[in-house]
Amino acid sequence: MTAATGGAASTGGPGAQDAVLAANQSFYDAVELGDLDSLEAVWVDERDGAVAACVHPGLAPIHGRAGVLRSWAAVMAGTPYLQFVLTDLEVQVHGETAVVTCTENMLSAPDGMPTTSFAGGHAVATNVFRRTGGGWRLWVHHASPVLQPGTGP
Amino acid sequence: MTAATGGAASTGGPGAQDAVLAANQSFYDAVELGDLDSLEAVWVDERDGAVAACVHPGLAPIHGRAGVLRSWAAVMAGTPYLQFVLTDLEVQVHGETAVVTCTENMLSAPDGMPTTSFAGGHAVATNVFRRTGGGWRLWVHHASPVLQPGTGP
Repeated sequence: MTAATGGAASTGGPGAQDAVLAANQSFYDAVELGDLDSLEAVWVDERDGAVAACVHPGLAPIHGRAGVLRSWAAVMAGTPYLQFVLTDLEVQVHGETAVVTCTENMLSAPDGMPTTSFAGGHAVATNVFRRTGGGWRLWVHHASPVLQPGTGP
Repeated sequence: MTAATGGAASTGGPGAQDAVLAANQSFYDAVELGDLDSLEAVWVDERDGAVAACVHPGLAPIHGRAGVLRSWAAVMAGTPYLQFVLTDLEVQVHGETAVVTCTENMLSAPDGMPTTSFAGGHAVATNVFRRTGGGWRLWVHHASPVLQPGTGP
């Protein structure tokens, strides 16, 4: 779910920003749905000549597609309900690279919580995409906890 | 100060990885030295067609060179002593874009602390660089607190 789209800058040709935003949304949709096949299609693979990298909030970076996908499988397996509302979306496209920053507003129901309860949380994410033969693919995802979403210092 | 250099991947031509690592180091050196002129030279500017973006640990993204530089001026003004030891460096260069991830091991003496005391801390950073007419410039910096530096899940 996307609540708002903010500023954007592009040298990537017509439609590039929309295509990047669609790829960004596909990433969060795949996690929400717990759809590992879709998630595999989102990330760069070795044929793209780029090594996937991922920083989950509070954790060290993971390098390499296999480890990154495994980490998301663990997130999805441990979170029966997870919804992202994205705000503060900013997109830049330069040639074959695009950067999206956004606030991830999360509602989740982790394993072991009463089914009538949700946990809320916010993170800020930087998502770097590469344009490949298969379209825009996620190259780097870095998410971190945020104290005051939507307001820079 | 750089303690270790880890894996790397490159399609950016000979020497590109070294040039990116040097640019990365220049960024941290400028902050350590409190040298705003050097810091200005590190970041992309409008002539590069890219908008600088920066996420400080726990804070929302800042977009635009002026705001980013202002935030670093505030960091430097409020921290009389700040030293970075970078570990877990990983570099990827693809064409005109490079991504560096690293652990920032920080020693600092913030204003108001006794001069015989230091505070230590760790963050993980993703630094995205663009190759410009003036060399590799920092486009996006995202740093976040890390619970277990050096170990992915």
